Amino acid sequence: MTRIIAMLCALFFTLPAFADEPCCATGDLGLVVERTSGSLVVIDRSEHAAIGRITGLGDLSHASLVYSPDERFAYVFGRDGGLTKVDILTQSIVKRVMQSGNSIGGAISDDGKLVAVSNYEPGGVRVFNADTLELVADIPTGAKTIGLVDAPGRRFVFTTWDTGETWIADMSGDLQITKLTGIGAFPYDALITADGRTYIAGLFGEDGMTAIDLWQDPPTPQRILPHYGRGQEKLPVYKMPHLEGWALAGDRFVLPAVGHHEVLWVDARNLKEVARTQTHGQPVFAVARPDGRYVWVNFAHPLNDTLQVIDTMTSEVVQELKTGPATLHMEFTPRGHEIWVSVRDENLVKIFDTRTYEQIGEIEVTAPSGIFFTARAHRTGL
Amino acid sequence: MTRIIAMLCALFFTLPAFADEPCCATGDLGLVVERTSGSLVVIDRSEHAAIGRITGLGDLSHASLVYSPDERFAYVFGRDGGLTKVDILTQSIVKRVMQSGNSIGGAISDDGKLVAVSNYEPGGVRVFNADTLELVADIPTGAKTIGLVDAPGRRFVFTTWDTGETWIADMSGDLQITKLTGIGAFPYDALITADGRTYIAGLFGEDGMTAIDLWQDPPTPQRILPHYGRGQEKLPVYKMPHLEGWALAGDRFVLPAVGHHEVLWVDARNLKEVARTQTHGQPVFAVARPDGRYVWVNFAHPLNDTLQVIDTMTSEVVQELKTGPATLHMEFTPRGHEIWVSVRDENLVKIFDTRTYEQIGEIEVTAPSGIFFTARAHRTGL
Repeated sequence: MTRIIAMLCALFFTLPAFADEPCCATGDLGLVVERTSGSLVVIDRSEHAAIGRITGLGDLSHASLVYSPDERFAYVFGRDGGLTKVDILTQSIVKRVMQSGNSIGGAISDDGKLVAVSNYEPGGVRVFNADTLELVADIPTGAKTIGLVDAPGRRFVFTTWDTGETWIADMSGDLQITKLTGIGAFPYDALITADGRTYIAGLFGEDGMTAIDLWQDPPTPQRILPHYGRGQEKLPVYKMPHLEGWALAGDRFVLPAVGHHEVLWVDARNLKEVARTQTHGQPVFAVARPDGRYVWVNFAHPLNDTLQVIDTMTSEVVQELKTGPATLHMEFTPRGHEIWVSVRDENLVKIFDTRTYEQIGEIEVTAPSGIFFTARAHRTGL
Repeated sequence: MTRIIAMLCALFFTLPAFADEPCCATGDLGLVVERTSGSLVVIDRSEHAAIGRITGLGDLSHASLVYSPDERFAYVFGRDGGLTKVDILTQSIVKRVMQSGNSIGGAISDDGKLVAVSNYEPGGVRVFNADTLELVADIPTGAKTIGLVDAPGRRFVFTTWDTGETWIADMSGDLQITKLTGIGAFPYDALITADGRTYIAGLFGEDGMTAIDLWQDPPTPQRILPHYGRGQEKLPVYKMPHLEGWALAGDRFVLPAVGHHEVLWVDARNLKEVARTQTHGQPVFAVARPDGRYVWVNFAHPLNDTLQVIDTMTSEVVQELKTGPATLHMEFTPRGHEIWVSVRDENLVKIFDTRTYEQIGEIEVTAPSGIFFTARAHRTGL
């Protein structure tokens, strides 16, 4: 009897979803955004395989997502203002709400209980119960809101495009907001360091960036990297670089330059520029391998068929890979032995060994963009 | 018919294991070592609950464990030389081998394919296939072996007690061993920094420690912290501190002093001592909260009923908690909002909010020692 039930079980659970296992661990899974079809492909990084697809997520251009602490659910932030909770195990949508007209990214609190979304239209931030997607807090800012991240202590930090303010929303008790003004002209994106200490906003309207040390009480904005930006000549910028890529490589941060064929190296302690490396094109993402030993860079159109690898110790390019047309996104396995690369115009995610640079696998995905492994659930500010 | 199968399934999967869900994500699970009974309690950190027990693991004094990349399997290193692979989902032993007479810790390679165990008796390191536990490599060292860690690039690093050598075993292709001599007198434990770059061995036979920068080619041992150790007076040492606790707090490392009621603060860049903090007793673990803002410390017998919390910015003790008799081990949730504490002589694991210091839960566990969350699967050197 036991054997029969087990057999039926296996059948029941495997048919809609998983080919190999009736019950499934989630530590090595992930999602790839299919931007043109509004769907997600579920991937298994141990198997180098796609194991399912979740459809019906609306406009996924520039979509991003975060994971619940158990690595079972993802919260997907669509450009159309849709917030969708998906279940990786059943490969289905749990709930979907249209929370605004136009949104740009989100975050999940350190305890996994709150999901926040930042909005262009009507602006502001909305915070939802991660279980039910019911609205918990509506935080109007009177401006387009960008650079939303989670910070330790059940906090969210975000910045306003129009008015140049950074707001710290502390939700550990009743909502408390700290507003910092004078961030600069038209902040377009922001990041928080992996330890959740330093929040840095990039500026579109002037050169330089603004750093905030969240350990200070009160935190005080500090202008850094005065020569970082488009410069006096207002260079054409094909694509503003993403700042989420800022990662610690040894004792330096790496930063994609704006409008130049360069990455910048910044001392992690004093946030001053210490070196520049000439690159193949305008960098979009400059991502440090998890051990910090090498930095992988992709580039803006029309030079976006290439990856370069830079040695952190020498700041020199040591490898160049022709990965294919529209190489949009990269994701390292959590301990860095592989990198997964979206090659949109070949409809492939390609997998490379980060030490031999050999391609060791590929997965068919329709117009892939962002790749997100579930291990992100355990990290701050992603 | 579907409904009947689903019901039978639920019954089949829930009865032996999970009360709430027929299929289960593993990102928020963990294991607690019950040292006196040779068993493990499976914990769910979202639910603040024990959800099962796995028995029959032999001698688990000083046991440690590592996780597979999918966060489904744990490899448990027992003091009796037993290597046991357990399945968290089915809550059972998959395989158990007696691989030596007396072992002390292990590690898993960055790709999750190899599990290594270091041995006192007969000494050396043995490497096993993570799927099958078949022996892949036997590396005799002619000495007791300690401080085994994984390093990026499918490498293992370990040190010999009797002969004072550190060996780097590169298993990315055919096994290649690099031997470094002159590490010092009687290395008793070692650690690797979270980025996998710096390996540091503590010495029992002399003061000071030895650091190796694995980014150097060839790596060269460097003596650091000359005043660290038992000192000229050969103070009584109730318990040698664990070095795994060495964690980055801001831009400094924290280190439990040997034989003194102190923790040491070490500059992360030059590895020089920069401050000391007086503590309640001889520290055993000094563990930084994942954001580095505070360091939590427990103490050796007979002062082991207390935890102290030190502010990283001021190096001052800001909180003291009487957690209970034989407070042996602490584990932070991956993003640091909670800390779970083993209180052996009360047969409890207690859960504290790391910001309010309030106890927010407890779980009955028989003589608990080590607590290990599955999120460790994604980190280097644990």
